[in-house]
Amino acid sequence: MILSLEDHYMTVEYDFLKACWGQPTERTPVWLMRQAGRYLPQYMEVRKNVTFLELCKTPELAAEVTIQPIDYLGADAAILFSDILTPVEPMGMELDFNPGPVFADPIRTKAQIDALRIPEMEEDVPYVLETIKILRREFEGRVPLIGFAGAPFTLACYMVEGKGSKDFAQIKRMMYAEPELFAALMEKVVEMDRQYLNAQIVAGAQAVQIFDTWGGIVSPVDFERFILPYVQKLINGLNRDGVPVIYFVKGSGAMLDLVKKAGSDVVGLDWYIGLNTAREILGDDVAVQGNLDPTVLYAPQPEIEAQVKRILDENAGRPGHIFNLGHGILPTVPPENARFMVECVHRLSQK
Amino acid sequence: MILSLEDHYMTVEYDFLKACWGQPTERTPVWLMRQAGRYLPQYMEVRKNVTFLELCKTPELAAEVTIQPIDYLGADAAILFSDILTPVEPMGMELDFNPGPVFADPIRTKAQIDALRIPEMEEDVPYVLETIKILRREFEGRVPLIGFAGAPFTLACYMVEGKGSKDFAQIKRMMYAEPELFAALMEKVVEMDRQYLNAQIVAGAQAVQIFDTWGGIVSPVDFERFILPYVQKLINGLNRDGVPVIYFVKGSGAMLDLVKKAGSDVVGLDWYIGLNTAREILGDDVAVQGNLDPTVLYAPQPEIEAQVKRILDENAGRPGHIFNLGHGILPTVPPENARFMVECVHRLSQK
Repeated sequence: MILSLEDHYMTVEYDFLKACWGQPTERTPVWLMRQAGRYLPQYMEVRKNVTFLELCKTPELAAEVTIQPIDYLGADAAILFSDILTPVEPMGMELDFNPGPVFADPIRTKAQIDALRIPEMEEDVPYVLETIKILRREFEGRVPLIGFAGAPFTLACYMVEGKGSKDFAQIKRMMYAEPELFAALMEKVVEMDRQYLNAQIVAGAQAVQIFDTWGGIVSPVDFERFILPYVQKLINGLNRDGVPVIYFVKGSGAMLDLVKKAGSDVVGLDWYIGLNTAREILGDDVAVQGNLDPTVLYAPQPEIEAQVKRILDENAGRPGHIFNLGHGILPTVPPENARFMVECVHRLSQK
Repeated sequence: MILSLEDHYMTVEYDFLKACWGQPTERTPVWLMRQAGRYLPQYMEVRKNVTFLELCKTPELAAEVTIQPIDYLGADAAILFSDILTPVEPMGMELDFNPGPVFADPIRTKAQIDALRIPEMEEDVPYVLETIKILRREFEGRVPLIGFAGAPFTLACYMVEGKGSKDFAQIKRMMYAEPELFAALMEKVVEMDRQYLNAQIVAGAQAVQIFDTWGGIVSPVDFERFILPYVQKLINGLNRDGVPVIYFVKGSGAMLDLVKKAGSDVVGLDWYIGLNTAREILGDDVAVQGNLDPTVLYAPQPEIEAQVKRILDENAGRPGHIFNLGHGILPTVPPENARFMVECVHRLSQK
């Protein structure tokens, strides 16, 4: 019997996907958030000829930098190279990088929200879907590919603040003083996110991660009121059959019970909480991903190894653990330390 | 019998101090971190004629702005107006504000650490002690005065990074790669902090708060290795007789068990954790301070009142709660909202 390409994918048992489903693996799978990035000289080589946005929008190049860390690090999963704001631009928001993302015209009024359109994914972000297709061919049987999107609240933060913020006064002002406006914006972003992630799944993404970088800036009570219902709606609207969903909220260690309620298959963890504490709160019916402090990659290798071992020990052999950093890899980390970390995870977790 | 001024102080029963000791009060005491600050027009009036450092170093003016929020807000405690870096400058580190604090020559070598001196408090920061003395006279029988210092780790962060940081790569590099260097720096800062806070207590501070703004940037395991021992040593070295110690670590909700081990009388809480959850972790033998999201002061007053009520409800009448924000008040908050918040705390907690 000759397997079609699709059948073949279905039969490969990737450690990463097994861990997402809470199944035991021979060794702990590992990847790094932002593993395609500036710490890699081979990335900088590609990046020097194009802007960041051009890189995101050129499938061959986006695919190339997605593959680099798989070749160099030996990571167990690849993540699409893109930016969380990529699908926000075609909603009608002019985007620039300077060097952080900047929206020229931040959302402040109902009229602006009404004017936002839901992109036609095949027409407005074809490069994202094309990159996924290229990568699935390239990775055939080698590693699974993770798609991703920014969580509704995190995207709304950027759209309302116009850029990164320290206090997030604008979005919170809207949340508290104009809750209908806030809700209208969130509903629109949820629908965009739903269609965007489903399009990625159709194109071939084998797992999806929802990044809620700013989901931890509110109190637990406000997370439950203003963030959780929208993430639940998003996750419920995904065509998840066989595609695990990872939800990562930075700074959520003291409200993981609420984060779990979002309904993802995997909960991403930052490094501000012990993995053992987190697993006790979360229970055995959800997998976890994390949670090394990214700055540990500046440490000498014996310290890196000790910290990897400590996290594996905290997990205590429970199935459903994907090793990762607690946030994106930092641009000035020595690449050999990242590679050493991956090697440590594999060696120390081998059964 | 005629009471001396000192006897008088001893006999006044301040709600704030009673709450620090875990004793019941008629109503919940409240103050706001950074309550003397830019959100107050009367502060800006004083500030327009002097630089920030000049204001810190001129006792009459520092006292004036310390008193302003007591008059305007009706807060139950005053906190000395100063900056956590004030005593670091006379250690031999040139300090500027631009607008955030900047050290011209960040600590990177053992020689630099050896060259740091422990200031003679009476000679090097006389204005701090003089401000405290003025305030004790001004506040006689009205409100207690809180002194404060930056925690050793937070001060070390500034000294090594040279300024605020996003990733704290420099201090963590030192922590992991040159632990002896890190330890030597921390020991020196602990000794400075100890003498500085004890001098404030001698001058008249009736409570002291240790601000660990950056104590939450590490994993729990690293907090226990690199931060906790030094805070314990500091707190053990204070002349605490009758003077409660408040320890506030921003971002520590998932490791409050470790924060408690520092040995303070009161644990300060940010807003990323429910007050009920925090009190369950901390137990009944330590008081808590917090924990309203500072951005709630941008909200309409009914929302402010609802959030105050929610926090009081979470505390459920347990003694040993001082109401506060979860971090400093923001400069653009309408002052009348801060005053309304204080009024809500008093009204809603009145027995």
